Amino acid sequence: MAAIPLQRTAIAPEWVDYNGHLRDAYYWLLISLASDALMDRLGLDAAYRQRTACTLYTVEAHIHYLREVKRADVAEVGGRILDSDAKRIHAGFELRCAGQPEPAALAEVMLLHVHQGEPVTSHPFPAEVLAAIARAQDQTRGEPAPEPGSRRMSLPARR
Amino acid sequence: MAAIPLQRTAIAPEWVDYNGHLRDAYYWLLISLASDALMDRLGLDAAYRQRTACTLYTVEAHIHYLREVKRADVAEVGGRILDSDAKRIHAGFELRCAGQPEPAALAEVMLLHVHQGEPVTSHPFPAEVLAAIARAQDQTRGEPAPEPGSRRMSLPARR
Repeated sequence: MAAIPLQRTAIAPEWVDYNGHLRDAYYWLLISLASDALMDRLGLDAAYRQRTACTLYTVEAHIHYLREVKRADVAEVGGRILDSDAKRIHAGFELRCAGQPEPAALAEVMLLHVHQGEPVTSHPFPAEVLAAIARAQDQTRGEPAPEPGSRRMSLPARR
Repeated sequence: MAAIPLQRTAIAPEWVDYNGHLRDAYYWLLISLASDALMDRLGLDAAYRQRTACTLYTVEAHIHYLREVKRADVAEVGGRILDSDAKRIHAGFELRCAGQPEPAALAEVMLLHVHQGEPVTSHPFPAEVLAAIARAQDQTRGEPAPEPGSRRMSLPARR
């Protein structure tokens, strides 16, 4: 529960599919919006992107869908920085329905800092962003991220 | 390239984000729609869902974002059944922009067959669906799925 609160979103009716709950892809939209909120918090906001032509690209993502999210729910997404280096952020996200302690989804995302030139190239974070990343990472350091995390997917051995 | 063609979708302008390309979550929407097309092909279509109160839930998913998808692109998603058992399908999806041989994204999804009672419970596939799964699985059997596949995510050791 130590994740940094990032995003609170009511479920739009058009996000609900024929199964009567939030379509899998829209769990990702909520997490993508939370990732934007994390960028703002780290100083990688619209002004930064405009000034530097740098931004974050998502290069990899893994999600566990744990519970249904229904039309009436309000989704709350929290995040934590699990790891980082000069150009990358490995972030974890937890999606909960307001008032429910158990997560509805757990996700991990790898974000790469790039300069959008021709061609797009990976680019080191500036010092002030590195400092903001370190501060955010410290907020949840030592708190174990919730399980399950990313992994190689396969069917269980019992068949 | 041996994946089963499932879905062809023009990029909607509202799916393009501040980075000037398809927002990460909408790659998932294209794959989610392709997963619906795969369900139709396996006989798990709207009539089946209505008749049986059974459907597929996505329980886990992993994606590698490999190339940008732009506003003018038409996305083509193909899929293959990597593995299956009495209640589950492990599917792989490849997203390409029309006319481009290299994939823009590779994803794996674990799908669970459930009965939407109170409570929702996992439920074995009926015989005719198992047969359709086997036929689809045979279409790409022996063809290696494109790499990279799902994996535990971490930053490289060099820091």
